[in-house]
Amino acid sequence: MRALVVRNGRVGCLARPEPQAAPGEAIVRITLAGICGTDLELLAGYKGFVGTPGHEFVGVVEEVVEDVVVGGDAARAWIGRRVVGEINVGCHECQLCAVAGPGHCAERRVLGLIGMDGAMAERVAIPVANLHVVPESVSDASAVFAEPLAAACRIPEQVEIDTTTRAVVVGAGRLGTLCALVLRARGARVEAVARSDRARMILAAAGVSVVTSAPLVEPGADLVVDATGSAAGLAAARLLVRPRGTLVIKSTCASPRGGEALQPTALVVDEITVVGSRCGPFAEALRLLADGTIDPRPLIHSTHALSRGADAFAAAANRGTLKVLLSPDGDERVRTL
Amino acid sequence: MRALVVRNGRVGCLARPEPQAAPGEAIVRITLAGICGTDLELLAGYKGFVGTPGHEFVGVVEEVVEDVVVGGDAARAWIGRRVVGEINVGCHECQLCAVAGPGHCAERRVLGLIGMDGAMAERVAIPVANLHVVPESVSDASAVFAEPLAAACRIPEQVEIDTTTRAVVVGAGRLGTLCALVLRARGARVEAVARSDRARMILAAAGVSVVTSAPLVEPGADLVVDATGSAAGLAAARLLVRPRGTLVIKSTCASPRGGEALQPTALVVDEITVVGSRCGPFAEALRLLADGTIDPRPLIHSTHALSRGADAFAAAANRGTLKVLLSPDGDERVRTL
Repeated sequence: MRALVVRNGRVGCLARPEPQAAPGEAIVRITLAGICGTDLELLAGYKGFVGTPGHEFVGVVEEVVEDVVVGGDAARAWIGRRVVGEINVGCHECQLCAVAGPGHCAERRVLGLIGMDGAMAERVAIPVANLHVVPESVSDASAVFAEPLAAACRIPEQVEIDTTTRAVVVGAGRLGTLCALVLRARGARVEAVARSDRARMILAAAGVSVVTSAPLVEPGADLVVDATGSAAGLAAARLLVRPRGTLVIKSTCASPRGGEALQPTALVVDEITVVGSRCGPFAEALRLLADGTIDPRPLIHSTHALSRGADAFAAAANRGTLKVLLSPDGDERVRTL
Repeated sequence: MRALVVRNGRVGCLARPEPQAAPGEAIVRITLAGICGTDLELLAGYKGFVGTPGHEFVGVVEEVVEDVVVGGDAARAWIGRRVVGEINVGCHECQLCAVAGPGHCAERRVLGLIGMDGAMAERVAIPVANLHVVPESVSDASAVFAEPLAAACRIPEQVEIDTTTRAVVVGAGRLGTLCALVLRARGARVEAVARSDRARMILAAAGVSVVTSAPLVEPGADLVVDATGSAAGLAAARLLVRPRGTLVIKSTCASPRGGEALQPTALVVDEITVVGSRCGPFAEALRLLADGTIDPRPLIHSTHALSRGADAFAAAANRGTLKVLLSPDGDERVRTL
């Protein structure tokens, strides 16, 4: 099959062996895969990853290998289902899996990120336990956002948010825009710092106040989300948090950055809470997509054939570009909305 | 009157004018005052403070100046009462006072720390609103711990703690020992890293496991409290937090430190929550002292006459020394328990 491969800071489309499903795993034929900031960081050396990236996907189950949990009938029931998938594969036996979930297992594999080929391919192998069926009403172009939207939905799991909350999202790009939409859907008053015209348009339509740079935001917010992935962005975000407020950090990046923005004595004096936030609830994300609360499709910048993977990554790396998708079924043309 | 004065990195006992109470303020005759880590940091230049330090005290109200809130009868009722006092004086008019409390008012004065002389003196002026009457059953030697014990009680206000919580306190000195005792009183399983033999004895008696250095603690704690005030201590504390666990930072210090221990990408990947924690509830602290849940008196290293203030600070600065007290009524001998 064809698959993108990341190696030595480069990405390209290569012929690769078909994935082999282990017991309890499914083979999913990929319909669409999304490029996120972390994928771009892989090219910069994040996690030293070599292999096929891709942890945002929607596809169709082609094959399931039975195990003691997924018996014959259950396995057959998955065939042909349109699915999205959670990306962490834990051992399910250790204390961390029990206490903090498979996303924090010390032995975890992570789809397209750690020890496991990802979804920027014609097909991918993934545990059935990670799959979620996509509701009929949710298009492929929406469903491919389930993973980053779930990550945005992690914030209200960690921080109490209501209509009295004044929230600011710094770095409303691919992920930050979804964070702002989720906070808005929870009733918060939301401001967002967005460089991209398209992000500003999407956010304004959802009732989010938008500005082009953090210094234009009035400090003193109850909740600030940093989705910039930069040291300067984190420092700017920190300055917007009111005493006893909360700073949520969403970005991961290859280079160490921004610890100096989290000056411990200042955190104590202002009693700031800093919350690291990663993967989130798929069920909640699919609910928001199915009931129309959030329509992420305007974020799509372009859809590229898998064979044009390098071009797709180059497009995604452009400042202000929102979501770039890959389609294994796509023809060779780049389709831009 | 006599009072300690901090200036240019030195501290000494000087003759000073009597404090003048403004409307709504009391004059408190100091019985005992405590030296804490922040006082030592003042000598290192923290907050550029010049004046009389001291924010831990117990004393007796000598005089009250009436205002619209504290009328004649209320004012007279305070005279002769044995009191401790909260240290933050906010404007009580701004948004921050309303939302985050007077401790976070941008215009705040803080007893012996910001814009206001403190309690290492024969008498101090302080708003009546800041005072708490000390219950009969609580001795002066216990009551002088109300302020740092309240700071320790801030932790369970910020973080959920129960009998399933595995907590580690790194840096169980003056403040850290109180933090460990409070967490233990809340039912947590508590381990503490303590250099001082006396701290280890006190903690062991309260059912806290004690070790002498952080690498001896098994990582994976639900809650880690850093009370070390050092970059290395914070870094060691960070490493002990389990994924999705909480790191509480209690120490403030003059020099910037340890931001590098709070590497943002690692906070995100492990979904760590970092909580800055400062002043806490006096009512709760007095309750713990009154009902005998916590007896802080074994922490007292020595009590010094005010005129020996420089010696007292030197004693407090010794590694492993716990609480050093000052007594304006004291004779010239140093009394060591």
